[in-house]
Amino acid sequence: MSMEQIRTGLQLQSLVKHSGVLELSLVEVETPEPKSDEVIVRVEAAPINPSDLGLLFGGADMSTARTSGTADRPVVTASIPENMLRAMAGRVDQSLPVGNEGACVVVAAGDSPAAQALLGKVVAILGGAMYAQYRCIRASQCLVLPAGTTPAEGASCFVNPLTALGMVETMRLEGHKALVHTAAASNLGQMLVKICQKDGVPLVNIVRKQDHVDLLKSIGAEHVCNSSAPDFMERLTDALVATGATIAFDATGGGRLAGQILTCMEAALNRTAKEFSRYGSTTHKQVYIYGGLDRSPTELNRSFGMAWSIGGWLLTPFLQKIGPAAAQKLRERVAAEIKTTFASSYTQVVSLREALSLEAIGVYGAQATGQKYLVAPDA
Amino acid sequence: MSMEQIRTGLQLQSLVKHSGVLELSLVEVETPEPKSDEVIVRVEAAPINPSDLGLLFGGADMSTARTSGTADRPVVTASIPENMLRAMAGRVDQSLPVGNEGACVVVAAGDSPAAQALLGKVVAILGGAMYAQYRCIRASQCLVLPAGTTPAEGASCFVNPLTALGMVETMRLEGHKALVHTAAASNLGQMLVKICQKDGVPLVNIVRKQDHVDLLKSIGAEHVCNSSAPDFMERLTDALVATGATIAFDATGGGRLAGQILTCMEAALNRTAKEFSRYGSTTHKQVYIYGGLDRSPTELNRSFGMAWSIGGWLLTPFLQKIGPAAAQKLRERVAAEIKTTFASSYTQVVSLREALSLEAIGVYGAQATGQKYLVAPDA
Repeated sequence: MSMEQIRTGLQLQSLVKHSGVLELSLVEVETPEPKSDEVIVRVEAAPINPSDLGLLFGGADMSTARTSGTADRPVVTASIPENMLRAMAGRVDQSLPVGNEGACVVVAAGDSPAAQALLGKVVAILGGAMYAQYRCIRASQCLVLPAGTTPAEGASCFVNPLTALGMVETMRLEGHKALVHTAAASNLGQMLVKICQKDGVPLVNIVRKQDHVDLLKSIGAEHVCNSSAPDFMERLTDALVATGATIAFDATGGGRLAGQILTCMEAALNRTAKEFSRYGSTTHKQVYIYGGLDRSPTELNRSFGMAWSIGGWLLTPFLQKIGPAAAQKLRERVAAEIKTTFASSYTQVVSLREALSLEAIGVYGAQATGQKYLVAPDA
Repeated sequence: MSMEQIRTGLQLQSLVKHSGVLELSLVEVETPEPKSDEVIVRVEAAPINPSDLGLLFGGADMSTARTSGTADRPVVTASIPENMLRAMAGRVDQSLPVGNEGACVVVAAGDSPAAQALLGKVVAILGGAMYAQYRCIRASQCLVLPAGTTPAEGASCFVNPLTALGMVETMRLEGHKALVHTAAASNLGQMLVKICQKDGVPLVNIVRKQDHVDLLKSIGAEHVCNSSAPDFMERLTDALVATGATIAFDATGGGRLAGQILTCMEAALNRTAKEFSRYGSTTHKQVYIYGGLDRSPTELNRSFGMAWSIGGWLLTPFLQKIGPAAAQKLRERVAAEIKTTFASSYTQVVSLREALSLEAIGVYGAQATGQKYLVAPDA
């Protein structure tokens, strides 16, 4: 493929205007000439993850979304509430590309041997700007997928797999021996079930629906608690006694769930304690919030002693903390197990154009478990 | 003084009955014969700190308190709500002594040279069971006060001074350069102001009343924010920009204050940030809750990015973490500066008997700033 054929390509961009309006559009951008250590990839498949939605929607209230433009070049606008607009100050009036990760085919390369070696390969990239037809990127950022891997299979190599692996690593680094996960029937949650089975790590899964209990049981999960059940707190405490879990990763963030987990951890510790400790159990209990599926405030009743902590958890700082060698080992495990442990499933494949339909936005914007979209930018 | 004279003494005890009733009473207990490395002290002055109230009240609703018994041996009873009673499971039906710390005179000693050397000395002790006339304790647990220190001056050598010093040490250990403190007009808060002045540590004080702003300004505090003022969030953000504080110690625990501090820290960091970071500032923001003056749930609206943490902080685990040598250095600093930096003031001195009057309980139980009681058990 010559550079002439790929000279320009469509890119999905998100613009927060100072007037408080979000504008999503497809922009024709020029594909740069790759430098010696760079390649040009054609993006074949890029997932829409919850972690993409913050940048994509810019805090806008998507129930106000309207479409204009043409069928080929739709434009979506929506209003951004005042308090959210303030938090967007740093990005106002800059049209930003979106899409954290995806799988691509390398279609052009700079003259370095490392870049040239990638020509024609299917690679996975965590680089941003993946909701686009083409992307110029350093050769070293490409993870070559095993022969026979399709772009759809390799599209979600980073965000979910590395986050799931990062949870287990964090558990080990911080001295816990089992973990709790919420929104556990998600793609990420299913990966975590498989990782924990392989690695022999006790896992307590929390879901909100009986369907999701059944789904996780069907892939072999041992402890699954339904937060909608009337005896949720008791069943969770039982599972915490059984596993000894004192660290949790919470995708929901809002409401009482994080506090309930801490309360049940404390109850589980006290159930086996030998003497009364006036400030509660001295065992440290940790909840990390890594998502915000529930945007309501987090409410903690603090009925869990004094040895507790709750905080944000993000993949990138975690990878920086463990260092490049350890991070590379995790990436290689993902590539090796991409069709098994780290297999993702998608509800629907959409083109860039279709990703901007109000119908699609209504579905993937709701971040419901089992409603994951895959963008095929070249479709 | 012979052992005969001090054979028995009164001790204030707190009993949580399985029926859900709290009972506070004065019990005559036998003073043990000191072992070789032990001393018997006569407790002269013991403060009622917020950290004593959990053990003292056992989760009871003190608005239901009633008195019975005699004038000399009053008995206070109150009901414990069901949910609190569950948390007290470990102490049910055991009558427990109360009082974390106090200043004492050594009146008898075991035969070891270390114990004998303390005879007649004024010492400060952090040992529990200090709301009592006599206490048997290891000689090594006695902090000898400088000559000329009265028991009232030395009564609060540990909990407040070491907590205030612990905050500054924690700030340094965790890589922050300035700190925030709430309920800042308390005895502890005033100590912290003086420590920070001496050590050149920028401090942001948060109080709820203009009186307390004036009080702290009068002892030289530079940044004092009134959380009742309509422009609280802006003034706090200004103070955070000026100081660079990214760690806070919160005595209140409940309500929105902890979250507001994190929100203002994030706003302060973004005010000086050079580029937009999609998950918020990457600088870690920390709030430690070390008290529970506000028993309502903690509410976090999570408008402060992902690099944050909130958790419990307690003195004892902190001292264990820094180790005995570092802890001893802190104790020696307290003894040396007990009449200046670490001076406490009290609203009222009460006997053991008076400490069990409903009137006194109503005052010290409210934990209002500037309403601190000192118990004189031998009065």
